[in-house]
Amino acid sequence: MTERYFEDLKVGDRFKSQTYKVSEEQITSFAREFDPQPFHLDRAVGNQTMFSGLIASGWHTAAITMRLFVRTLNFAEGAIGLGVDELRWPTAVKADDELRVEVEIVDVRESRSKPTYGVVRLRYVTANQHDEIVQTMFASALVLRKKK
Amino acid sequence: MTERYFEDLKVGDRFKSQTYKVSEEQITSFAREFDPQPFHLDRAVGNQTMFSGLIASGWHTAAITMRLFVRTLNFAEGAIGLGVDELRWPTAVKADDELRVEVEIVDVRESRSKPTYGVVRLRYVTANQHDEIVQTMFASALVLRKKK
Repeated sequence: MTERYFEDLKVGDRFKSQTYKVSEEQITSFAREFDPQPFHLDRAVGNQTMFSGLIASGWHTAAITMRLFVRTLNFAEGAIGLGVDELRWPTAVKADDELRVEVEIVDVRESRSKPTYGVVRLRYVTANQHDEIVQTMFASALVLRKKK
Repeated sequence: MTERYFEDLKVGDRFKSQTYKVSEEQITSFAREFDPQPFHLDRAVGNQTMFSGLIASGWHTAAITMRLFVRTLNFAEGAIGLGVDELRWPTAVKADDELRVEVEIVDVRESRSKPTYGVVRLRYVTANQHDEIVQTMFASALVLRKKK
């Protein structure tokens, strides 16, 4: 797959990822390590909450989104995350959900402090197999410019 | 440890977590699963970047922050994340860093739609063993009210 550089992007470009299926075991395993709250760990507890089921940590959803993003955009030498805004989880992720991400380029500019990089602003929408939105966010990242 | 409820919190309260030491193996293992970019996977590549070393994914830093937060606050039945704003990573996390989190309550209000819950707004600052700030963010969460 071709590596992407700053010059390959323009505002309005959209990219669609592959899908990623998340298992109950992955949900509880992530939760045990990073977000050990009862509704992420135990299906019986989750069934009694407003979610009516075991749900994934929002940080797990964010991490899966990153995985799908990295594989889809394939930036030369990677994209260095600068920050994230308006991260929301409108629908919970449940076991056996199949997630996919759509990314839109919302701004591009040259970096003032790092002339070999550009700064890209992106909007991410992560959805499940029912087309319900499970996560939205804006993020900024440094990506490499082509050598002249 | 006592479970915490909405009524136990007031604006200005601060909570300090324990520490969490992150190994090189944990950094590369998280990155292989969720953020497979060269500077998170390979120390030799990381050494040649602006970071001069292998660095953890920002999403790994966020996940560790969540772990430390959950253990520190210990909300009854857990805290349900609503969203995150202004997530920033001013300094990269490296192997053998010891992280800790300080959380401040910046707003509390009753939930209009879910009367058994309150909405808490929190500011998180995650630091390393050199007192460098590795992550900051604001987050909102639903936490349970005491039964009357």
